[in-house]
Amino acid sequence: MPDHELKNLIEAADRAITAEDFDTLMGFYAEDATLVIQPGHMATGKQQIRKAFTAIADHFNHRVKVSQGDMRVIEAGDTALVIMETIVDAGMPDAADGSDVRRATYVFRRQASGGWLCVIDNSYGTALLDD
Amino acid sequence: MPDHELKNLIEAADRAITAEDFDTLMGFYAEDATLVIQPGHMATGKQQIRKAFTAIADHFNHRVKVSQGDMRVIEAGDTALVIMETIVDAGMPDAADGSDVRRATYVFRRQASGGWLCVIDNSYGTALLDD
Repeated sequence: MPDHELKNLIEAADRAITAEDFDTLMGFYAEDATLVIQPGHMATGKQQIRKAFTAIADHFNHRVKVSQGDMRVIEAGDTALVIMETIVDAGMPDAADGSDVRRATYVFRRQASGGWLCVIDNSYGTALLDD
Repeated sequence: MPDHELKNLIEAADRAITAEDFDTLMGFYAEDATLVIQPGHMATGKQQIRKAFTAIADHFNHRVKVSQGDMRVIEAGDTALVIMETIVDAGMPDAADGSDVRRATYVFRRQASGGWLCVIDNSYGTALLDD
C-alpha cells in the first residue's frame, strides 16, 4: 500500500519546523487552526501559531528537530484524524538520548481544491489527560 | 467553569449505548461518520455504525456499560477534538474489575444549526499504534 498522502504532508511540515521555514510551515495550517503549544496552552489562528513556533525555536536555541514514526489515519468525509509517532529532538541533555517520542493526534480537513489543511495540531495526543 | 457542551452530549450518547437505544444513538453521528470498531476495523456511515453497535451488544450478551472520566476539548473553528477517559464495562471476567479504561479521541463538527455531530469515534485513542 502506498503511503497516505497525509504522511508526505506531515513530513514536509516537520522538515519546515526543523529548517525554521515558518512561511512554508504556515501553508499547512487552516486559517482557524489550533496548535497545542503545551498542555493547557493553545495558539489559535496562523498569527498565534507562527509566534508560538518562533518562541519554541528561540527557547530551544534553534536545535529543534522533528521526525515521524508509525501512523494511522481515520477518514470520515472531508475530515481525517491522524495518530502518529512524533520524535521531537530539542537537544535537551536531560533526555536519555536527547529526544522525546510522542503519540500525536492531528485533525486535517480536505479543501474544495482537494488538498488537506491541518485544523488541530496536538502533538501531546491523549497525554493531555496527565496534566 | 461549566462543563463543556460536548461532555453532556457524549454522556447522553454513552447512556444510549448502555440502554441499547440505537435510534437515539444514531442521532449523535454525522451521516459520513467513521467508528473504529477495533484496531484495524472501521465502520463508515450510520448504517454500518448501527450494525457494529448491534453486533457488539450481541457479542457481549447485552452487558456493555459505557461511562466517562476526565476530558480535554481542543476547538478550531467548527471542529473539536475531544480527548476523554472512557470506561467500558463489558462484564468480562478476565479484567481485574471487569472494566477497561481507554483514552478515547473523538472528532466533532459543529452544524449550521449550532449543534455538534460526531464525525470520528475512536475509543482506542493513540493505542491504535500498538496494533
